[in-house]
Amino acid sequence: MTHATDSGAVIARRALPGAPLLVAAGGARPDRVPVWFMRQAGRSLPEYRRLRASSSMLSACFDPALVCEITMQPVRRHGVDAAILFSDIVVPLYAAGVSLDIVPGTGPVVASPVRAATDVANLPELAAGAVRPVADAIGLLLPELGEVPLIGFAGAPFTLASYLIEGGPSRHHERTKALMHSDPRTWHALLDRLADLTRTFLQAQIAAGVDAVQLFDSWAGALSERDYRELVAPHSAKVLAGLGVPRIHFGVGTGELLGAMRTAGADVVGVDWRVPLDEAVRRLSAALPDGPAPVVQGNLDPAILLADFAVVEREVRRIVAEGRAAGGHIFNLGHGVLPDTDPDVITRVVELVHGLEP
Amino acid sequence: MTHATDSGAVIARRALPGAPLLVAAGGARPDRVPVWFMRQAGRSLPEYRRLRASSSMLSACFDPALVCEITMQPVRRHGVDAAILFSDIVVPLYAAGVSLDIVPGTGPVVASPVRAATDVANLPELAAGAVRPVADAIGLLLPELGEVPLIGFAGAPFTLASYLIEGGPSRHHERTKALMHSDPRTWHALLDRLADLTRTFLQAQIAAGVDAVQLFDSWAGALSERDYRELVAPHSAKVLAGLGVPRIHFGVGTGELLGAMRTAGADVVGVDWRVPLDEAVRRLSAALPDGPAPVVQGNLDPAILLADFAVVEREVRRIVAEGRAAGGHIFNLGHGVLPDTDPDVITRVVELVHGLEP
Repeated sequence: MTHATDSGAVIARRALPGAPLLVAAGGARPDRVPVWFMRQAGRSLPEYRRLRASSSMLSACFDPALVCEITMQPVRRHGVDAAILFSDIVVPLYAAGVSLDIVPGTGPVVASPVRAATDVANLPELAAGAVRPVADAIGLLLPELGEVPLIGFAGAPFTLASYLIEGGPSRHHERTKALMHSDPRTWHALLDRLADLTRTFLQAQIAAGVDAVQLFDSWAGALSERDYRELVAPHSAKVLAGLGVPRIHFGVGTGELLGAMRTAGADVVGVDWRVPLDEAVRRLSAALPDGPAPVVQGNLDPAILLADFAVVEREVRRIVAEGRAAGGHIFNLGHGVLPDTDPDVITRVVELVHGLEP
Repeated sequence: MTHATDSGAVIARRALPGAPLLVAAGGARPDRVPVWFMRQAGRSLPEYRRLRASSSMLSACFDPALVCEITMQPVRRHGVDAAILFSDIVVPLYAAGVSLDIVPGTGPVVASPVRAATDVANLPELAAGAVRPVADAIGLLLPELGEVPLIGFAGAPFTLASYLIEGGPSRHHERTKALMHSDPRTWHALLDRLADLTRTFLQAQIAAGVDAVQLFDSWAGALSERDYRELVAPHSAKVLAGLGVPRIHFGVGTGELLGAMRTAGADVVGVDWRVPLDEAVRRLSAALPDGPAPVVQGNLDPAILLADFAVVEREVRRIVAEGRAAGGHIFNLGHGVLPDTDPDVITRVVELVHGLEP
């Protein structure tokens, strides 16, 4: 497989035809159920906490060696079927020159919130070169990973917009919703800019060699399906169109949106724990009745990992069984690993999933 | 209508046969769509902020004159079709003797979290006399309210359990979920105790004269339908059984749970903004196919009140139109009033709803 880089050079993409993650993402049945965990590279791991003790989140995301090491940690420890690039949703905004910081215990804080058409016009663009450290990290990762696929990562335009408009994490997204409805022209201009930026970021990762991407719309679940389809999905579709690698699309609390998230251009739709996978497959099939059998990712409740392992095992078996209704199933959590999770439990889940019939 | 008080005395319940809220709750069509707002008595009102400047939340909830005045404020200002008793979810726990405080900016904080069978056994019971100030407040309110119904209020067992187990507000409810799955015996013992406490609290309010009740399961939306039906709904059903007044049952993010929340014993099911009312009616009908036409409450997104009024008006008209699919519709938000809401917008929504054909 080949693809063009920004400079027009055509580089060889590594082929991993047997990788269970890529087989499942393609809608076929691999010889074992592939499994990875959102936030597998993170605070549940003591080796991560040691490594991050002396660095800020943003500086870590732009340090290729550190990104490589953090991304590798859960692959080595758990034997998961994919690595997910260690990054943060606001990385491309920061790289473009938006003044923001990630404050421990709070999250991203934006110095000058975006609330008017002039703010949108003044948003900087992202040059692919500005995320060179991320591409460099991918370059370090590929030989380390061997046959294990690397998933690239970006936040979706709606989620980025909410950070920019609210000035930080928001529970109710009220300024975001007020803007999208009161001033749809400014809203669409903003989302269009953010779609370009997100697409540039993902293309840079793809050019550097990631094997798949996950578009993370953390907060899309705060929207009604009507608003999502009209005001958000077209911009996510612009990001996802024809990227050339499998595209995973996920948000938490998106039971009402699964069909719309599929038709926005996802090959794989992530499902949280609120909707069983067989029901998710029904919703995804209804959204694209002439399309291929849906491929799903998820849906173990991250909180379950804190219960007794007998409970974890029962849930894992149920999810793998329900996942057989899909064209392909990538086992994952329904949201990120919680920091208090015992990493040994994660390792045991990987072993359990690998021992079950796909 | 009559009912027995705790002392065995039978007192007359006031009859409000023409009150639009009660007509709609009974599944009939009143001459106007009744409207009230969750958290209508609260921080959006300057007169509330003035009144609360010098009191803690808990002391306010046990001051009959203050509860009466705060409960009346939105009725006077907005002309809503119902008052909702000013209270807090943890009031019956505090009244029973659980050591807790409501910390501004954080929420309820429980001194000794409940995590083992002995903790459950040591939970104090609620004597109806311990919530006498709440009953006294209701006694003050009824003559003030005249023909406007008063809705009583309690948090549901699951939501109370989460506060007790986590020790405060929780985003992921991980200890709660771990306990419910790992130790279902302790879980059910805890929920049973909390159901008794909640029922006692609601019965005290009913004995004092409230015209309806709302059971608020703030966080039920964090559960899958399977877990909700098995581990939570039976306890909410125990609370709601045969209370003798219309029962409203609400939680945010409960699109997957609407049917189960109805069959737990609700006359009216609250719907947030993620599911349109006509779709909610379909789900509620499917849950009880031989039952009466469902009655719904909701579903304006509270964030919409911060948008231009043209947007608010469009949404209100759509919701009232979609609500005609129900046996009865009580207009409300899909969650509580946000503190930054302009109270004049709320008043305009009331006028708008009242001018629309039911």
